[in-house]
Amino acid sequence: MNNPTTPLHTCLSPALLHLYDLRESIVVIIDVLRATSTIATALHHGAESVIPVDSVPECIRIGQALNAITAGERDGKVAEGLQYGNSPFEYPESFVRGRTLVLTTTNGTRLLHMAHDNQAAQIITGSFANLGAVCDHLVRCGRPVLLACAAWKDRVNLEDTLFAGAVADRIADHLSPSCDSTRMARSLYRQAAPDLYGFMKEQKASHYQRLSGFGLERDIRHCLTPDTAPVLPVFRSGKLVPHG
Amino acid sequence: MNNPTTPLHTCLSPALLHLYDLRESIVVIIDVLRATSTIATALHHGAESVIPVDSVPECIRIGQALNAITAGERDGKVAEGLQYGNSPFEYPESFVRGRTLVLTTTNGTRLLHMAHDNQAAQIITGSFANLGAVCDHLVRCGRPVLLACAAWKDRVNLEDTLFAGAVADRIADHLSPSCDSTRMARSLYRQAAPDLYGFMKEQKASHYQRLSGFGLERDIRHCLTPDTAPVLPVFRSGKLVPHG
Repeated sequence: MNNPTTPLHTCLSPALLHLYDLRESIVVIIDVLRATSTIATALHHGAESVIPVDSVPECIRIGQALNAITAGERDGKVAEGLQYGNSPFEYPESFVRGRTLVLTTTNGTRLLHMAHDNQAAQIITGSFANLGAVCDHLVRCGRPVLLACAAWKDRVNLEDTLFAGAVADRIADHLSPSCDSTRMARSLYRQAAPDLYGFMKEQKASHYQRLSGFGLERDIRHCLTPDTAPVLPVFRSGKLVPHG
Repeated sequence: MNNPTTPLHTCLSPALLHLYDLRESIVVIIDVLRATSTIATALHHGAESVIPVDSVPECIRIGQALNAITAGERDGKVAEGLQYGNSPFEYPESFVRGRTLVLTTTNGTRLLHMAHDNQAAQIITGSFANLGAVCDHLVRCGRPVLLACAAWKDRVNLEDTLFAGAVADRIADHLSPSCDSTRMARSLYRQAAPDLYGFMKEQKASHYQRLSGFGLERDIRHCLTPDTAPVLPVFRSGKLVPHG
C-alpha cells in the first residue's frame, strides 16, 4: 500500500490544466470517445507506436515521411486528407501489427502535448479499454497522479469524468482523492458503474448524442467496456509505445 | 412550461467562463460556502443592499464613504481590516435591517464581476438559502441560464456543483440540461439530496474540511439548508438588491 498522502487529482478540462504542477506527477490523458480507446486498441493489437500530432497537415507530413498509417478526426468524423478515423474497430491486429499510426484528434492529442509542455514527469493514456493496466501502473509507482480529461473543446464531458472516477475508485486503497473533482468523478462512476452505456444514454451525454447521431453506438459500447486492450501506452520521445 | 430548447448550462469554474456567451443569459452566481448564502441572508433580513467588491482596500474605502458595514473573508477567515466575516449568522435582522453591506470574498465576488464584464443579460446570486426563489425566477423568465460556480481559486468544488444540480433538478420540467456539466451536477445532487451535509462530510469535500477545521460545522449545515432566506438578489448598478 502506498503512502495515503500521495495526491490523486483530477483535471476536468484542459482549460484547468494550469492549476496543477505536473513536474512530479504521472499524468493520465483521458479521451474515452475515442482517442485513448483507439490508442490502447492499436498498441494492444501490435502497432509499434502511435504518434499523436496536433494538426492534419502535420499528420499527413509525418505519415508520408514514415510510411505510416495516418488517422484522425475533427468534430467526430474522419478528417479530410487522412486515411482512417478514430474508431477502435478500424485497427484489428491484421492491419496494425508492426506498423506506426500517426493520429490527430480534436481534444486528446492537444491535451497530451499540453501536459508535455508543462513538464509532466510521465505521460500515459487511459481509457476503459486499458483501465486495469493504468490502475496497476499507478499503484506500482506510488507517485502523485493527475487524471487529465480531454473533455470536448474545453467543456467538461461525462465519459472522461466517469473514467477518472473508475480509476479513483479502483485504486482507492492506495491513493486517496485529493480534490473535489476526483471525489465527484468517483461518486458519479459508482452511480453509473452497473450500466455505463445505459447511464450515458439516459443522461443524454453530449458525446453520446454526437456519436450516436453518426450511427456509432457500437463504438460507444466498446469504448465503455473495461479491459478489452490491456496495455499501458507511455509517451516517450514523441511517441506512445507499450510500457516495458 | 417554457420552450424545452431554452439552454441550461453549468460552468463549474470561473476559469471556464470564457466558453459561454452570457449576453442573452441569466447568470446565477453560486458560492454556497459562504458568500451567496450570506448575501441571501442579509437581504432577507432587511439589508438595503450588498455591494460586492474585489479587494479589501476597496471594501474599506466604500464602507467609509457610505457608512456601511464592511465584511469579507480571505481563505475562509475574516479579512484583516474588515469588521465582519462571511457567516450568515453574523447578519441577523436586528443588525442589518436598512443597512448596506460591502462584501469581498475569495471567489464569489470576483466571479460576479467577471460575469458583469462579460455582459451577462442579468446576474442573480443563488445558494440553498434561496433555492426556491432562484428556481421560481428562472422558470418565470424562460431565458437561457448559466449556473456559474465560484469554485475555490478556480478549482471545481462539491457544494457549488451540488447547488447547480439542485436547480437543474427542480426546474427540469421547464429547462433541460444542455451540457454534461449540468447533467453531472444533477446526478450528484440526486445522489446527495437525502442528506447533503452527510454527503459533504462523507466525501471529505475540500471546503467542508477547510471550514470544519475552523469550527464552522454550524455554518456548513445552515448553508446546505434550503429556503432559509427566500429572497432573490439581483445585481443592479453595482449593488445586489432584492428583486421587485
